[in-house]
Amino acid sequence: MEPSELEPRAAESLLSDELVEAWPALSGDERLEGFRLLTPVEAEDLYLGLEARDQVSLLLALPSGERQIWIRQLPPDDAADVLQEAPGEERARLLDLIDPDTRREVTALLAYAEDEAGGLMSPRYARLRPEMRVDEAISYLRRQARQRLETIYYIYVLDAEQHLLGVVSFRELFAAPPDKTVRDVMRTDVVSVPDDMDQEAVSDLIAQHDLMAVPVVDAEGRIKGIVTIDDIVDVVREEATEDIQKIGGTAALDAPYLQVSILEMVRKRVGWLAVLFVGSLLTATVISSFEDQIARAVVLALFIPLIISSGGNTGSQATTLVIRALAIGEVRPRDWLLVFWREVQAGLALGAILGLIGFARVTLFPPSETGTSTELIAAVVAVSLVGIVLWGSLVGAMLPFVLRRLGFDPASASAPFVATLVDVTGLVIYFSVATLFLRGTLL
Amino acid sequence: MEPSELEPRAAESLLSDELVEAWPALSGDERLEGFRLLTPVEAEDLYLGLEARDQVSLLLALPSGERQIWIRQLPPDDAADVLQEAPGEERARLLDLIDPDTRREVTALLAYAEDEAGGLMSPRYARLRPEMRVDEAISYLRRQARQRLETIYYIYVLDAEQHLLGVVSFRELFAAPPDKTVRDVMRTDVVSVPDDMDQEAVSDLIAQHDLMAVPVVDAEGRIKGIVTIDDIVDVVREEATEDIQKIGGTAALDAPYLQVSILEMVRKRVGWLAVLFVGSLLTATVISSFEDQIARAVVLALFIPLIISSGGNTGSQATTLVIRALAIGEVRPRDWLLVFWREVQAGLALGAILGLIGFARVTLFPPSETGTSTELIAAVVAVSLVGIVLWGSLVGAMLPFVLRRLGFDPASASAPFVATLVDVTGLVIYFSVATLFLRGTLL
Repeated sequence: MEPSELEPRAAESLLSDELVEAWPALSGDERLEGFRLLTPVEAEDLYLGLEARDQVSLLLALPSGERQIWIRQLPPDDAADVLQEAPGEERARLLDLIDPDTRREVTALLAYAEDEAGGLMSPRYARLRPEMRVDEAISYLRRQARQRLETIYYIYVLDAEQHLLGVVSFRELFAAPPDKTVRDVMRTDVVSVPDDMDQEAVSDLIAQHDLMAVPVVDAEGRIKGIVTIDDIVDVVREEATEDIQKIGGTAALDAPYLQVSILEMVRKRVGWLAVLFVGSLLTATVISSFEDQIARAVVLALFIPLIISSGGNTGSQATTLVIRALAIGEVRPRDWLLVFWREVQAGLALGAILGLIGFARVTLFPPSETGTSTELIAAVVAVSLVGIVLWGSLVGAMLPFVLRRLGFDPASASAPFVATLVDVTGLVIYFSVATLFLRGTLL
Repeated sequence: MEPSELEPRAAESLLSDELVEAWPALSGDERLEGFRLLTPVEAEDLYLGLEARDQVSLLLALPSGERQIWIRQLPPDDAADVLQEAPGEERARLLDLIDPDTRREVTALLAYAEDEAGGLMSPRYARLRPEMRVDEAISYLRRQARQRLETIYYIYVLDAEQHLLGVVSFRELFAAPPDKTVRDVMRTDVVSVPDDMDQEAVSDLIAQHDLMAVPVVDAEGRIKGIVTIDDIVDVVREEATEDIQKIGGTAALDAPYLQVSILEMVRKRVGWLAVLFVGSLLTATVISSFEDQIARAVVLALFIPLIISSGGNTGSQATTLVIRALAIGEVRPRDWLLVFWREVQAGLALGAILGLIGFARVTLFPPSETGTSTELIAAVVAVSLVGIVLWGSLVGAMLPFVLRRLGFDPASASAPFVATLVDVTGLVIYFSVATLFLRGTLL
């Protein structure tokens, strides 16, 4: 590398990189202060790379003259995202700062929900007529390229009513003989999406077909905009974050961890915790119905947490694996029986291994006063473990399918939810095995 | 939409779409059978859209004549992925089927690990010399575009020794005055990555700078290839899947759920389960040291699962939130104190809410024989809950930081791991509170 060419940027951007890295943890004032220290190019880079939420807070921190300059930097789809994130009373004022042409585009985009194709798309795509010659098309595109198009990687071929007729990649057009028409070189098997398609489905489609962009069409087949792959990277991340948070047993935070107020955080977390807690109350009911057995054989109480947490852990594993496999299409809803059968085998194997460890623990380090033979207690623990681990695997693996069938998000089968469910039923298994084995000796 | 233009594809591709959807659940024979039914265009689409793992199994199922045709369809980076997935004994044979030029490129790529920049990159990028005029550059690119380049969206400007001097987007070049030189229009502040950079870091960089591709350079600043954003979509998905599986308490499966053998599945799951199980054995030890208290107040046993699962659930929530926030850079390692303080507040609030519910449960539906005042038992439960929920939040939130500090993946602080850790310590809290409150009455 010729140091003279590239070093200036490396030196300059140290501050910029640090600022980007620290951004989530900075207060509004600190952000503004850091932003002011950047060169114009760095400031633009940083600003354009921010999430819509952060762009809003920066914009609102700026005096109104600068606010206009910066909001006009945004392409219409990003401007629409910014307006959607802005507090209600600021929205109209920000919209007024945008130039009239873009404002019209932004207003059209605002009609769509954030998480559907229409909410992701940009109206600035490259377009051609089918009857144009290739060389005409290239010079026409050359003029279009001076506008701020989202991409010229794909060019869409439209009739006079904006119906999508075909697509040609810039590379294909560029490599084609100059005297052919666009219709000759375009492909008509265009993968397109309806404007109300969910963003997760759009992202699956783009990934599956290895596309750089996909056109969005209305019910009449008229093109409304395009969704580009760089938007999809954000979607994939967002959806994974939501799933992870749900698997962990919280409602999706919808904002960075450090930017959620404590009150909001408690609200997002307490819902599931309270539901699970009420569910857990059943464990006390179950145990109290076996209170006599415990009073006669306190040794049984020793292994309660061990037994139920083994069921809970296996259940967490199974549910997490199945939720993710469903989310990325590795498993389809109709594969439930296949999954069931796999989990029967895996659950039995895992249960047998844990059962053996449990049996060894009880026989090698027997509890002080069992009141009966150590081997009998060890057998109760081992057999219960096999049953509970199998049960945990099956409940964990099947619950996402059941939830999906009932119209809920499979990711709601969170690890804590499955663990709690298995806790309650696991106790019944444990005490039933104990009653069966210890009848006549302790119980 | 003019139906005549687009309908043929819709009808034809029904089979193709179904096949793609069913792919993960099909056996090798069924896949081959379905593949044979497709039109050549559909077959190519399906094949190119498959994951490397699935491309390998399809290739190996084909007779060797066809195998050669299909492996030559792949650009060098994808061919390298296929070879990496192929069983050892087939690798050399598949490599021999590739044409000599591509084979050289593939061999160079095979030197890199799959999950670093070098393993993701393609050597087929568009390149220009700085002294070329814009119009010369465009017609030179026109010739390059006939080869199979990964993208002509970005064009890299190199000196004679392949040192990266700058970058120009095709759109910029296209819109520039024809008589300027490439040096005049190129940007020199190129974001590039070293060839051994981890794929997660590459994907963060691309997302942060909103790039469509990033050049990969060696230690001397010579360009080796480019990583394009469509590879990044796969990386983001893969990394999220790995994190989700770890959070659920399994080792990363590294393959689709339905394609992992039962034996492999058990192996990936039993490790953590066994560790957690051995950890759980401590619960029995803890309880046995409080055996006297339980024998005297069996009522205490009733609430063991309730208490410990509340701690486990809060811990799962906190650890999941923090792991994800760290993974996507919303929280940095140095923010641990900030997170600690937030979790103290959230944990106390959550604990108070659950404590209240617990107190209500015990006083409204008192256990049959408490042997002491119901209120006293209710107070033990409520106070223990506040302590355990707070403790669970803090352990869950801090463990990812600790693991990261020790050089482990923060995602190893899986929900089941935190739950088990909190189980053991939660019991100590519970019995200590009980001993304190019930001294003189029951204990």
